[in-house]
Amino acid sequence: MRVISWSCECCLYLTPSAVLVLTLSKLVVCPASGSLERRPEWKDFILMADSKPLFSLDGDPVAAEALLRDVFGIVVDEVIRKGTSASEKVCEWKEPEELKRLLDLELRSQGEAPEQILARCRAVIRYSVKTCHPHFFNQLFSGLDPHSLAGRVITESLNTSQYTYEIAPVFVLMEEEVLKKLRALVGWSSGDGVFCPGGSISNMYAMNLARYQRYPDCKQRGLRGLPPLALFTSKECHYSIKKGAAFLGLGTDSVWIVKTDERGKMMPEDLERQISLAEAEGSVPFLVSATSGTTVLGAFDPLEAIADVCQRHGLWLHVDAAWGGSVLLSQTHRHLLDGIQRADSVAWNPHKLLAAGLQCSALLLRDTSNLLRRCHGSQASYLFQQDKFYDVALDTGDKVVQCGRRVDCLKLWLMWKAQGGQGLERRVDRAFALAWYLVEELKKREGFELVIEPEFVNVCFWFVPPSLRGKQENPDYSERLAKVAPVLKERMVKEGSMMIGYQPHGTRGNFFRMVVANPALTRADMDFLLNELERLGQDL
Amino acid sequence: MRVISWSCECCLYLTPSAVLVLTLSKLVVCPASGSLERRPEWKDFILMADSKPLFSLDGDPVAAEALLRDVFGIVVDEVIRKGTSASEKVCEWKEPEELKRLLDLELRSQGEAPEQILARCRAVIRYSVKTCHPHFFNQLFSGLDPHSLAGRVITESLNTSQYTYEIAPVFVLMEEEVLKKLRALVGWSSGDGVFCPGGSISNMYAMNLARYQRYPDCKQRGLRGLPPLALFTSKECHYSIKKGAAFLGLGTDSVWIVKTDERGKMMPEDLERQISLAEAEGSVPFLVSATSGTTVLGAFDPLEAIADVCQRHGLWLHVDAAWGGSVLLSQTHRHLLDGIQRADSVAWNPHKLLAAGLQCSALLLRDTSNLLRRCHGSQASYLFQQDKFYDVALDTGDKVVQCGRRVDCLKLWLMWKAQGGQGLERRVDRAFALAWYLVEELKKREGFELVIEPEFVNVCFWFVPPSLRGKQENPDYSERLAKVAPVLKERMVKEGSMMIGYQPHGTRGNFFRMVVANPALTRADMDFLLNELERLGQDL
Repeated sequence: MRVISWSCECCLYLTPSAVLVLTLSKLVVCPASGSLERRPEWKDFILMADSKPLFSLDGDPVAAEALLRDVFGIVVDEVIRKGTSASEKVCEWKEPEELKRLLDLELRSQGEAPEQILARCRAVIRYSVKTCHPHFFNQLFSGLDPHSLAGRVITESLNTSQYTYEIAPVFVLMEEEVLKKLRALVGWSSGDGVFCPGGSISNMYAMNLARYQRYPDCKQRGLRGLPPLALFTSKECHYSIKKGAAFLGLGTDSVWIVKTDERGKMMPEDLERQISLAEAEGSVPFLVSATSGTTVLGAFDPLEAIADVCQRHGLWLHVDAAWGGSVLLSQTHRHLLDGIQRADSVAWNPHKLLAAGLQCSALLLRDTSNLLRRCHGSQASYLFQQDKFYDVALDTGDKVVQCGRRVDCLKLWLMWKAQGGQGLERRVDRAFALAWYLVEELKKREGFELVIEPEFVNVCFWFVPPSLRGKQENPDYSERLAKVAPVLKERMVKEGSMMIGYQPHGTRGNFFRMVVANPALTRADMDFLLNELERLGQDL
Repeated sequence: MRVISWSCECCLYLTPSAVLVLTLSKLVVCPASGSLERRPEWKDFILMADSKPLFSLDGDPVAAEALLRDVFGIVVDEVIRKGTSASEKVCEWKEPEELKRLLDLELRSQGEAPEQILARCRAVIRYSVKTCHPHFFNQLFSGLDPHSLAGRVITESLNTSQYTYEIAPVFVLMEEEVLKKLRALVGWSSGDGVFCPGGSISNMYAMNLARYQRYPDCKQRGLRGLPPLALFTSKECHYSIKKGAAFLGLGTDSVWIVKTDERGKMMPEDLERQISLAEAEGSVPFLVSATSGTTVLGAFDPLEAIADVCQRHGLWLHVDAAWGGSVLLSQTHRHLLDGIQRADSVAWNPHKLLAAGLQCSALLLRDTSNLLRRCHGSQASYLFQQDKFYDVALDTGDKVVQCGRRVDCLKLWLMWKAQGGQGLERRVDRAFALAWYLVEELKKREGFELVIEPEFVNVCFWFVPPSLRGKQENPDYSERLAKVAPVLKERMVKEGSMMIGYQPHGTRGNFFRMVVANPALTRADMDFLLNELERLGQDL
């Protein structure tokens, strides 16, 4: 076997001029000359596997390092510094067609030079919304925790999967420790759990586990032969409950909607009623999903009373605390979740109020019977070999329905180590305090009307523009008021001054939902919000 | 309202000495002095919402920046440079109990100083497996693409969710463009798709879509009232198919296993037979999941013949190309997936062979009827308002069963921009070439026995230690041979010299599965693998 020449563009390692490569058995001609088959035999490629990789940065650690140092610099300047500055824009709005043109998204055959790549990085950041900005109030997540981001950068660089101790020794142990801490806050000294790709999937896990616990055959036989199953949740629940019911083959009809009171809390007496109704129709109740921190109003269902109902009927109690779970860190406010220790499962997203970074969603279980592994395990022999030299109970990957699973524990762990439980508690308490400050300030101004007195950090209100003030009695008042929020939203986004979400809700027309979550917020940001709405809406 | 004093540790902003805070209505005493109720009223907290945040780095951009610069430096030194160096260890093995002690995982009340946090970052990296190391051959992913990592760091810093154009304008457009490119490589000029949290969930999406297409009522009514459904996949399929069937309420019994030939490819004639058997038992076939690139052997199912069967029976054809999909980039090798354009859905994980970083898994659909949105949508009014000022078709979040969804497109897009399609094609071709080089070298050595001639970059082989050579006829040969791989695995991991997976497979005892995926690999790494196994196993 002998190589005559190498290094051409068109066929990996041969020269651009047509070049001959001799193998023992065959003469192979460069495709540039046109005479090589388009599907050469394996052995023709042996020679291409040179001892040095030739691609751009592949195997060129110096260039790779330089690129990454440059990108890290851009991230620090454009996101960490400018993105979090109140004097910069939250977003730079572009219409989709213009944005497409600006970004030049097309993927081509030719690669680009490092300077061009850096320019692309800058453009991506420039036109992206700065969720870390102090005037981004749009979602249940916001802010930028530097320790969490540090953890996420390390996670990305280590690029491993959470399935075996073999390839994720640190993270298998760390995930257990973090979950143990979260469980302790729920009130459990033992149990199980796993980080899931988002709260919706955490909720689905709970539904699947509850179903499996009641009907273990279901894993093998499916829902065939089972009676219709019924699960119960409030009308303020997150939409993932219905999505999950559909995905899991139960169907959205299996979700029985329980009434809420005027604050958005599930009414336990209506839960009783719905259970009876479902049973009367021949369904078998198996699960109640209570919500701790509803999406719009921020309501907390009365868990003790709901747990009583579940206990009476032998139902699995799941608490969707994706939003409100972090309140457990606060000695002052954790009473909102009183009774959560009686749940069978809890979904809790530290990526929301704790700013741990998307995504960080824990499913916590009170179970100590290895239910997760029994329900989801399939013992794939290529991954979960039983003749390993360490305790294979550490190979936690068979607890999940995924195969590869991202490492979501490090960001939370590192942030917790840096802040301490006390620091995180102060964040939660501070968010409550700022929300309350906002409520008080809002009440002082004539252009604002509170939807309900909040019990959490969701502050729901209408901005009443000058032309509608004092016109509550007009028949078209509500209709006209509902049109205000979309107009203001468009204005704020196009100016880039602020972002806050709005929605209709039940019979109520569009109102703003302010979310106080970013740990860097101050009173000044609350004042800004109110002033800015007044400014944007003064002509309406 | 008047503040007498501030800044205590125990109750947010008051001093450690007991301190009085006067509100208009109430005297509140610091808990340090013991006389404050544990559940003070909301209004007591107003004063805590000071105009300056007081926590460690919250709102302190200078300190946050310094921390992140330090962490970026650690990542460059310890992962990018040392982690990818062949002269360093792949892993530093520790027993779980010792590792727990070294990491000091416990989460406490007190936060830690920046130097301590940096030490923790170094420890996490030190004891983690370096999947970017040139001697990490353990999984279907490996290597470190600097452009992908750059994209991932930007993604993490921007921390947004993929659901609306409002908060992810760049990424909504970018995801569409990347999916369009992947679809074009499949052979589709139109269609739909979405990035999912891993190939298993992509496969589940396909199953759910196929089911919904056939029985749209299923979303609402569930599987109740439907006949038993049957889906078909080969015995070499990924275990996520069975996991998915269980999760979706179909049950593992609904998965009919089709025989494979000696190379691990699904046998279309047995597929026909299984379909008939399922029908004879009263099941309704609805889906065939073919595999392009099986996990262990790297086999490609014959898609044309399978598509013929699907066409004949009116079945949804899903191709699980999580592993092999990236071969579509290679003009030379893409024939392995001939017929994939006839599929209804394709799962393809660029985080594997293209080293795009965990996780990057595309579900691609041929459908142009908005099936994804119809199947999964729930029109949550707080997120997908219909009175927005832009085209709400851009709010793609209702296509998925999750709510928040990570941005997985940027890393692939940026890498593609830098490498060009040509650069990525060369990577794929090079992986094939190196795998073939390894096969040739392995055949020259007496201590190695190939399991099958590979057609992909999985090279499956036994290492036959000196004491077993020439003893093939001994009755206990297979049994003894099967014990070799676990011993060698333990030795290599404890030395940290290399990581390569092994597994039993059907009637075959444990053999090694070498995966050539890291784009920085060279022939020298292949030689190292063989030499190292010989060294580690010379006394066996």
